[in-house]
Amino acid sequence: MSATKPASLGFIEAQQLDSRSLRQAIRACQYTGHTAGLAPGMLQANVVILPEDEALDFMRFCQRNPQACPLVGVSDTGRVGIDTLAQNLDLRSDVPGYNVYRHGELVAQHKDISALWREDLVTFALGCSFTFEQALMRAGVDLYHVKHNTTVPMFRTELACREAGKYGGNMVVSMRGIDAEALDTVRNICEKYPHAHGAPVHWGSPEAIGIHDLNNPDWGDAIVLEPGQIPVFWACGVTSQNALDRARPSLCISHTPGHMLVTDVPEDRLPPFLEQS
Amino acid sequence: MSATKPASLGFIEAQQLDSRSLRQAIRACQYTGHTAGLAPGMLQANVVILPEDEALDFMRFCQRNPQACPLVGVSDTGRVGIDTLAQNLDLRSDVPGYNVYRHGELVAQHKDISALWREDLVTFALGCSFTFEQALMRAGVDLYHVKHNTTVPMFRTELACREAGKYGGNMVVSMRGIDAEALDTVRNICEKYPHAHGAPVHWGSPEAIGIHDLNNPDWGDAIVLEPGQIPVFWACGVTSQNALDRARPSLCISHTPGHMLVTDVPEDRLPPFLEQS
Repeated sequence: MSATKPASLGFIEAQQLDSRSLRQAIRACQYTGHTAGLAPGMLQANVVILPEDEALDFMRFCQRNPQACPLVGVSDTGRVGIDTLAQNLDLRSDVPGYNVYRHGELVAQHKDISALWREDLVTFALGCSFTFEQALMRAGVDLYHVKHNTTVPMFRTELACREAGKYGGNMVVSMRGIDAEALDTVRNICEKYPHAHGAPVHWGSPEAIGIHDLNNPDWGDAIVLEPGQIPVFWACGVTSQNALDRARPSLCISHTPGHMLVTDVPEDRLPPFLEQS
Repeated sequence: MSATKPASLGFIEAQQLDSRSLRQAIRACQYTGHTAGLAPGMLQANVVILPEDEALDFMRFCQRNPQACPLVGVSDTGRVGIDTLAQNLDLRSDVPGYNVYRHGELVAQHKDISALWREDLVTFALGCSFTFEQALMRAGVDLYHVKHNTTVPMFRTELACREAGKYGGNMVVSMRGIDAEALDTVRNICEKYPHAHGAPVHWGSPEAIGIHDLNNPDWGDAIVLEPGQIPVFWACGVTSQNALDRARPSLCISHTPGHMLVTDVPEDRLPPFLEQS
């Protein structure tokens, strides 16, 4: 991007960094990759940036659909930080990749959006599935997409979201294969993370929620169910992207998929997160 | 209020009603009393009604201070219902008493606010302590203020809320006396109700949070601590009233203290509450 750009960091090097150092490397465009598995134990978040005249409706949409869109932070209008997630955050540069949408169309991808910043922008941070996946793996639950380094399969469903203004549409779910006898354990672990999609919304019968072919996900890669495994479905943050695609706000900036905001909040901490200084 | 007003109901009669019938009686101004102990097992909520131009800041204030101001519902602008709390709700008449504030001053009290309704109003419903108190009593925990039919003591603290626009101020807490050996039980029960103030924010040392005289609460009635009891403090919904008093919005309509919105949501159900029809 610039003649003075510092040397870039690879994923292995990024794995050595704590959340603050990682964000500094991201801010300097030294690290621009995905954040899965980085700064383990710290909350990561989806990012949605909207003009203030869209903010109340989008916030109501999230409040009404908390499993899919768990709000973990909302900025003041025009402010580039969210103090409950990290001190000295700069939302214009601390996410490793941004997608820029105008009237619902993806028009650009950037590593830094300082040039696009406006005083009327509001940033929403939504919890993400990395949080409960880490907890499941710590409990010995194997996850196919992690083991095989693929993207978790995601499906459109017939589960209607609760609408707010022009924000609506159906829920998008992610799917993981879980041993039938581990289902209760999985549910008990995940429900401890309501700020990260919580317990599964469905399991066993994909057709019951409008999924007709597990081998053809709408996003991500198909997985193989092992003998004894059942398909288990979680509300997915892509639900908000789906709602934004339909609502077509004049401007929306979100993180590039997989390239999340890394916070300084331990992921097992419940809201309101960071202690006050 | 009117020549055709139906016969009024007393508290004992109101106790016989389920949540829907109780709301009907309230809507008809047949019952205009407090709601503590009514429609047991159903979520009750504090109500704050604001013009839309105040709504985003107030909603951010609640999102940042969820223990004191747990959002359990937010209406569409101008709409008199919140479908996740009850079907066919009419927020202009279904609360047994309303306080009307203009620029921070209490200017009127009403049993029905239809004449004041405007198309730019947004209604916020915040969880209330009745929920965890019922759960504590079911577990055999005695509550002095319930036993003696007094109002729970509430205190201003030195715990600063997170600000949002002009909404801020310190946290207000309610206090209950708890047997020292029951404290863990109490904490475990209450943390299951994050939508109703959750676990206590402090116990044992009132001075540590800026409370210097337990016998002089800022609101409500003093209680007597039994031998072996310690003072335990919960974030209190009056925090939002305190923030509103400071912010002085052009119009604010809230429930009259103790006269809550009774919903059709079982109080042990987590958001998003009512199943969709």
